[in-house]
Amino acid sequence: MTVSTERAAPTCFDPALDGDRLREECGVFGIYGHRDAAAITALGLHALQHRGEEAAGIVSFDGSRFHSERRLGLVEDTFSKRHIIEQLPGHIAVGHVRYSTTGGTILRNVQPFFAELESGGFAVGHNGNLTNGLTLRRRLVGEGAMMHSTSDTEVILHLVARSRRNRFVDKFVEALRELEGSYSLVAMTNKKLIAARDPLGIRPLVLGELDGCPIVTSETCALDIIGAKYVRDIENGEVFVYDETGAHSYKPFPAVAPRPCIFEYIYFSRPDSMVGGRSVYEVRKNMGAELAREAAAPADVVVPVPDSGVPAAIGYAQAAGVPYELGIIRNHYVGRTFIQPTQSVRELGVRLKHNANRAVVAGKRIVLIDDSLVRGTTSVKIVQMMREAGATEVHFRIASPPITHPDYYGIDTPEREKLLAATHSIEEMRQYIGADSLAFLSVDGIYRAVGEERRDPARPQFTDHCFTGEYPTPLTDLAAEKNGKSQLSLLAEAS
Amino acid sequence: MTVSTERAAPTCFDPALDGDRLREECGVFGIYGHRDAAAITALGLHALQHRGEEAAGIVSFDGSRFHSERRLGLVEDTFSKRHIIEQLPGHIAVGHVRYSTTGGTILRNVQPFFAELESGGFAVGHNGNLTNGLTLRRRLVGEGAMMHSTSDTEVILHLVARSRRNRFVDKFVEALRELEGSYSLVAMTNKKLIAARDPLGIRPLVLGELDGCPIVTSETCALDIIGAKYVRDIENGEVFVYDETGAHSYKPFPAVAPRPCIFEYIYFSRPDSMVGGRSVYEVRKNMGAELAREAAAPADVVVPVPDSGVPAAIGYAQAAGVPYELGIIRNHYVGRTFIQPTQSVRELGVRLKHNANRAVVAGKRIVLIDDSLVRGTTSVKIVQMMREAGATEVHFRIASPPITHPDYYGIDTPEREKLLAATHSIEEMRQYIGADSLAFLSVDGIYRAVGEERRDPARPQFTDHCFTGEYPTPLTDLAAEKNGKSQLSLLAEAS
Amino acid sequence: MTVSTERAAPTCFDPALDGDRLREECGVFGIYGHRDAAAITALGLHALQHRGEEAAGIVSFDGSRFHSERRLGLVEDTFSKRHIIEQLPGHIAVGHVRYSTTGGTILRNVQPFFAELESGGFAVGHNGNLTNGLTLRRRLVGEGAMMHSTSDTEVILHLVARSRRNRFVDKFVEALRELEGSYSLVAMTNKKLIAARDPLGIRPLVLGELDGCPIVTSETCALDIIGAKYVRDIENGEVFVYDETGAHSYKPFPAVAPRPCIFEYIYFSRPDSMVGGRSVYEVRKNMGAELAREAAAPADVVVPVPDSGVPAAIGYAQAAGVPYELGIIRNHYVGRTFIQPTQSVRELGVRLKHNANRAVVAGKRIVLIDDSLVRGTTSVKIVQMMREAGATEVHFRIASPPITHPDYYGIDTPEREKLLAATHSIEEMRQYIGADSLAFLSVDGIYRAVGEERRDPARPQFTDHCFTGEYPTPLTDLAAEKNGKSQLSLLAEAS
Amino acid sequence: MTVSTERAAPTCFDPALDGDRLREECGVFGIYGHRDAAAITALGLHALQHRGEEAAGIVSFDGSRFHSERRLGLVEDTFSKRHIIEQLPGHIAVGHVRYSTTGGTILRNVQPFFAELESGGFAVGHNGNLTNGLTLRRRLVGEGAMMHSTSDTEVILHLVARSRRNRFVDKFVEALRELEGSYSLVAMTNKKLIAARDPLGIRPLVLGELDGCPIVTSETCALDIIGAKYVRDIENGEVFVYDETGAHSYKPFPAVAPRPCIFEYIYFSRPDSMVGGRSVYEVRKNMGAELAREAAAPADVVVPVPDSGVPAAIGYAQAAGVPYELGIIRNHYVGRTFIQPTQSVRELGVRLKHNANRAVVAGKRIVLIDDSLVRGTTSVKIVQMMREAGATEVHFRIASPPITHPDYYGIDTPEREKLLAATHSIEEMRQYIGADSLAFLSVDGIYRAVGEERRDPARPQFTDHCFTGEYPTPLTDLAAEKNGKSQLSLLAEAS
Repeated sequence: MTVSTERAAPTCFDPALDGDRLREECGVFGIYGHRDAAAITALGLHALQHRGEEAAGIVSFDGSRFHSERRLGLVEDTFSKRHIIEQLPGHIAVGHVRYSTTGGTILRNVQPFFAELESGGFAVGHNGNLTNGLTLRRRLVGEGAMMHSTSDTEVILHLVARSRRNRFVDKFVEALRELEGSYSLVAMTNKKLIAARDPLGIRPLVLGELDGCPIVTSETCALDIIGAKYVRDIENGEVFVYDETGAHSYKPFPAVAPRPCIFEYIYFSRPDSMVGGRSVYEVRKNMGAELAREAAAPADVVVPVPDSGVPAAIGYAQAAGVPYELGIIRNHYVGRTFIQPTQSVRELGVRLKHNANRAVVAGKRIVLIDDSLVRGTTSVKIVQMMREAGATEVHFRIASPPITHPDYYGIDTPEREKLLAATHSIEEMRQYIGADSLAFLSVDGIYRAVGEERRDPARPQFTDHCFTGEYPTPLTDLAAEKNGKSQLSLLAEAS
Repeated sequence: MTVSTERAAPTCFDPALDGDRLREECGVFGIYGHRDAAAITALGLHALQHRGEEAAGIVSFDGSRFHSERRLGLVEDTFSKRHIIEQLPGHIAVGHVRYSTTGGTILRNVQPFFAELESGGFAVGHNGNLTNGLTLRRRLVGEGAMMHSTSDTEVILHLVARSRRNRFVDKFVEALRELEGSYSLVAMTNKKLIAARDPLGIRPLVLGELDGCPIVTSETCALDIIGAKYVRDIENGEVFVYDETGAHSYKPFPAVAPRPCIFEYIYFSRPDSMVGGRSVYEVRKNMGAELAREAAAPADVVVPVPDSGVPAAIGYAQAAGVPYELGIIRNHYVGRTFIQPTQSVRELGVRLKHNANRAVVAGKRIVLIDDSLVRGTTSVKIVQMMREAGATEVHFRIASPPITHPDYYGIDTPEREKLLAATHSIEEMRQYIGADSLAFLSVDGIYRAVGEERRDPARPQFTDHCFTGEYPTPLTDLAAEKNGKSQLSLLAEAS
Repeated sequence: MTVSTERAAPTCFDPALDGDRLREECGVFGIYGHRDAAAITALGLHALQHRGEEAAGIVSFDGSRFHSERRLGLVEDTFSKRHIIEQLPGHIAVGHVRYSTTGGTILRNVQPFFAELESGGFAVGHNGNLTNGLTLRRRLVGEGAMMHSTSDTEVILHLVARSRRNRFVDKFVEALRELEGSYSLVAMTNKKLIAARDPLGIRPLVLGELDGCPIVTSETCALDIIGAKYVRDIENGEVFVYDETGAHSYKPFPAVAPRPCIFEYIYFSRPDSMVGGRSVYEVRKNMGAELAREAAAPADVVVPVPDSGVPAAIGYAQAAGVPYELGIIRNHYVGRTFIQPTQSVRELGVRLKHNANRAVVAGKRIVLIDDSLVRGTTSVKIVQMMREAGATEVHFRIASPPITHPDYYGIDTPEREKLLAATHSIEEMRQYIGADSLAFLSVDGIYRAVGEERRDPARPQFTDHCFTGEYPTPLTDLAAEKNGKSQLSLLAEAS
Repeated sequence: MTVSTERAAPTCFDPALDGDRLREECGVFGIYGHRDAAAITALGLHALQHRGEEAAGIVSFDGSRFHSERRLGLVEDTFSKRHIIEQLPGHIAVGHVRYSTTGGTILRNVQPFFAELESGGFAVGHNGNLTNGLTLRRRLVGEGAMMHSTSDTEVILHLVARSRRNRFVDKFVEALRELEGSYSLVAMTNKKLIAARDPLGIRPLVLGELDGCPIVTSETCALDIIGAKYVRDIENGEVFVYDETGAHSYKPFPAVAPRPCIFEYIYFSRPDSMVGGRSVYEVRKNMGAELAREAAAPADVVVPVPDSGVPAAIGYAQAAGVPYELGIIRNHYVGRTFIQPTQSVRELGVRLKHNANRAVVAGKRIVLIDDSLVRGTTSVKIVQMMREAGATEVHFRIASPPITHPDYYGIDTPEREKLLAATHSIEEMRQYIGADSLAFLSVDGIYRAVGEERRDPARPQFTDHCFTGEYPTPLTDLAAEKNGKSQLSLLAEAS
């Protein structure tokens, strides 16, 4: 889902991060046939909150009418309230969470999107990003379509609306055939719950079941929160439909090998989720263990950068035989919006969230473990904090390879020039962050951590362009932009 | 502008009125070329607040981008705030106020509407109602159009978007040709301010000027508040366009005589406005004077029902030579949302807003003057309040004819069976409201009050179907509804 | 009730008034023995809203516990809500509304005040102002008392708390004996409803009855709104107590003639209230009629300054035989907080609330009637607006005498140098406001309007120092301030 | 600080906890001489947020005036905003955070409290609880004192106000002499920053320094967040005063050995804080290690109950040589207010915050480590969740002794009958929570963890009555309550 944020709005800038984290774009959830469809969707979205903190929405259908609630803020801000849930009656519901961007956000872009088509109401939520979204948008507007959001997801609705096919599923598939890029979709009509995953299966999507009712959602942790059973992953290129006649699976695209995004393991999915049949926690521990094997540091204690580096640090510590210690304590109260009125209190940086645990660090050689390195700004501060707390040596180990290329499939990476590894050698990076040594996990190391022997250069098993530069689909919009096609979005909603 | 309110929402029910007032639907304002376009529009909308208390919106264009703010509530709730106005930069702006309905309201219906067309951004605000709006909507949805509101105004945007004409004005006129019913529109593109009035000129629209910048708006009072000059009325069937080349007037429809809505004089427009070249205040005084001539009551004092009956009561008192006295005092603090927790305090009814001025009423024969009578529920309470305050006789005089037919052109009349005069004789109405006598102004009396000799039955000079049953245009949707065409709107936005 | 506003807070400055109105300080309401005590109090306060727009509060007692709600804003903002009223259970309740000042306001000052005394809970609301409040405050703080508000009313609670008398009424009377200035109090304990009026009866207080339950309140309009019966005025110097044994009246002070504030007739009380047995509306009409007799202007129409001048204008028009016309239309939507971003829209002044009714004014000689003249800033703008609307002559008539002295008894007058009449002759004032002629009602004229033959200089029948400079009590704090006693209040509550 | 919550208000009930945690009462912070006093205090309070989530307040003094802001909610909700901090100018500030209770909360109880004494303004914040607070309150009210809160802290202000001593410090000490129980106070006048700790030093209080300015606060982590230096602990029975003449330390009480609360190590203080010269993190690891020595379980993995059991689990794992694994994943998004509309989704319990990490748990014998056990309701759910995730054996180990007695010194323990260990044997507790085995750390074990050889029964080194029943001071109020003295507080604020 692309959002062309039109205006730099006041935002919750996180001084502890300095924009030094990647951001996932969106999580989805849908259920069919349950009397508490909206309440269950709300809980599922709460479990997926890490996939999108910016906004959340739910659409339900009560047998005669659709109901919708979409709001900025966390799931709990809106959907923990009984009166909100009571305004979302019905037995089918789909929901969506959206990531937090540093740019402006507008309510019109909050999903699920809904449209009244001639065939009836249709709602859809999208995790992923279309690489030809703007191109499609231009074409549709040229044909008289009226766009109401700045999101690429909206083109899907217009494509469905304009299809001349008779069956709804055929209209939907006809629309999907136009799309390039990544999409895991949950959608609903007044009769059906629909899930679809792009031909390569870039973003995750799983099928579960609760009290006999089917659920489709981004991660298994959203099944766990409601006590639902995991059934299977939706396959790459699969369109799954559930209605009163039961489940139907379509494979409208030419069969290709799946190529899911490797970052779900490194970074985005919750450690208690199973992705592609693998435990995310175990994969992260494996990454730490591989890192210990590839690039062990001479240290007295292993210190995770909380919370992102914790599983890899446990794996590293076990493999290296070095004690695991909480050398950095995280303040779980958010603390991200504190003003810093004057220079004297301006340089708090990382301290609002992280504090050195001096008793663990002082006089020790430490190895810091983090899951990835984006801009490096946080790493600089953490290394400095460790030294001020008395660490005698600070070694930095990253449990994934250097990120050298931006993503166009639903991860909000900085422009290429802001990616530290795109412009610095490893030694330059070490100097920048001030560590005594720095090492990254190799690309093959990460493939080993997920259970592959090595990366297959002919047919890579995963979407891994951020490390390799090999993009899995055409980048149509990017090519058009380079040819000077301008942005369409003209409207900035004033709040 | 039709709104098919989908759900009975909690509402600001006014216990003093019991739904016993007509409600105007909307006011519009637009300005071109002023550096404070949005601030001026906000002030203009504040002056038009009586035309729509439910919601307000402004769209502006700053030379490169459109900005929009639409909110439920009064103009002042949103647009008196500096930071809101600062988010609406630019030199062109259009604004809209919407009436307060007793049903639910949703933000998606708040105007001005905006769309990104292939030709660029386009915003429009609408006062009036299309009598073929649903019919057009059905046709457009059948062609793949996606509707986002439940308002008939949205079809105008789709019609413009789908026009294959080249010039924007031609697209716009092509869209207008499809419309039936009433419309006074203000619209804007990134280059133009546009105003249009339906062929009969049912709803008002005037042209003004401030510091050399053209303004189009519903009433002259919106010009007065900002010190702008009144130039002329936009004519029936006129499309007025202003851009950097200056003003352009188009008359794309066959020339017919205007037939403006008589209710603007009786009821809707502010007394300090000039409508069709006539002072609303003077017309209302004339109505009172005509009423005194047609149906004088034997009374000691003339008492207006505040504030609606005040000008007519002044006119009546002057013509009848009976003292004008404030026998009812209105509490201007709103008081409409007070709970009435138990039976003992439940029957407050009219008292939250109105109180008898006993010193004026006790021991007197009074004649109450009001501008119109809809359901009669308020009149019952006011007559009773006057008697409890000691009035010896209560005569009721209505400064307009009995309302026997609903409106379909932008006035929110009750269904026909709720209109007291549609089902009761005058004597039955008198008994219902409990007055000693009751009389209405005649239809010819109201024509005299506006300066005509009498109503021309062959070609009525005004839209007056509420009194006469003669509708000025086809009622296409109504006919379709009788043929069983169902409602399209399926989505209820929660909250 | 004095409030020493500590900080210039952002405020609702009313550009139509420019601070050019006096402000009443507070209204009170209390009821005993009714199952809906708080709901009835809320309605009573709504009727008294004109006496205080800044804040409102209610305290109730449910047989075992006191409940309290005090909030900034209008009565309706808080007390129209069922859940608020449900949190105020009980059969005894007292309530209070507070005026809107241009300075800062703090919740700590919102009444009724409550304290847990050794004898149990005690709540009190105060209309009036103590002229020795600061002096008492200094003494009490010196004795170890802790003050929590900056209001003079709080000293009453401390005085009661410190009394060594046994019976609660004796403690209360002992406290009253220390007070100078004006007070109309409603108070309650867990057993009693109490009302008290200062020895001169400066501020009003009436006794009513609903369903057998006693009510004490500032004006009769608060009885009317709930259908309660007026019983009598609380007398000057009376302490009225109601408990399960019935009503008890005490007269603890030496008997003196009452001397109520004349401004209640001119200005503060609602026209439908009876004050001291006189109809406020009739007194205001009399003032207009006296004015016509004393200083008739050569005019074609009589135009009231709305709404303050309306009753006097009706009286003037009837006495002078000149037509009464609405030459100025008031916009009842508040409009007071509009920003004026640039010079070009800055000079809107009076227009946000008032507009000339050109049809009435153009080409006419008009006489404007207002109830009083304070700073004159509004009058300047209104005269100018009338001339711009085409009035050929503008005569200004004020239905009360020139205000030359500030008040210290509960009216928020400007400092003396801001009172136009304190520093200008009548001719100078005429020039300042730009009228063709200007006249005020004489002091004896106003006494005639209330039914007296003339003012008795030896024992004035009314508190009228604003016109005469004769204050009815010592001004102890003012004298101390001139001797250099400083302000005590040190705490500024943020927001 | 006792709060007698008068009314069961709607509250943020945490379904994951079921009240199954102890709650600390309050954290304090004060600084003298810094131009950003309020901003620094806000940051310090943010670091102390875990000590009180209910409300926060700051008072500052700017050289001529005191400023105050007190609000419900987290520190960041209020004090991260620039405009709030700007309303708190000055170079001296004190702040306070308050715990979150399941009962109602009222703004009047939010600290720091402020009073205008004859000697000038005085503000105070209190961590701890007076065991004779109600007794003092009754006496003061009997002397005419007016109480405005239901907090025991308010009596301190009244005692200071009533002291007849001349020097402020003498007044303050005279007040302290009346107090029993625990108190760590930070206070300020217009000239001084004051800190005081009760004779036994039950609650913590440390002295730090930033840019030469003294800071007093509850924990060292509040020094770390702003980069301040730790100087020393305020001693038991010490009164520390800082003014323009520098630092002054008073020891007005008879010298006794300190007896700090042992729970600060087990439970309340942040792991990165130093308390009494010991690292809280190291003590907790020691507790885990002692537990492994006293009561090792036969297990494949060590699983902490997050986040409370994490340090003890690390210590246990290292001592026992069993792998430490994240078998439970905590959702850091709050999730505590989710409604559970129907039975089918009602039993979510612990899942909103915690999820089993099945890959770690399935097929394993696990030992769960938590820091303490209060009611046991959460433990039941966690054991069940582990079994459902496939654990073959679940052993539970608690890194502190059984809690058998309630606290009266600032910890919000349930009544005795709700404490599981007060009414159940260890075997009964094991059955209740459903574990295969259950063991607690011994009292001597916890003394060893803090570095003592053993508990000295004659003169216990710590306040440990929750485990031993030996209270360190008289419990005057409790004795009075048993004698039938009733509650004073009568006023319930309605929101």
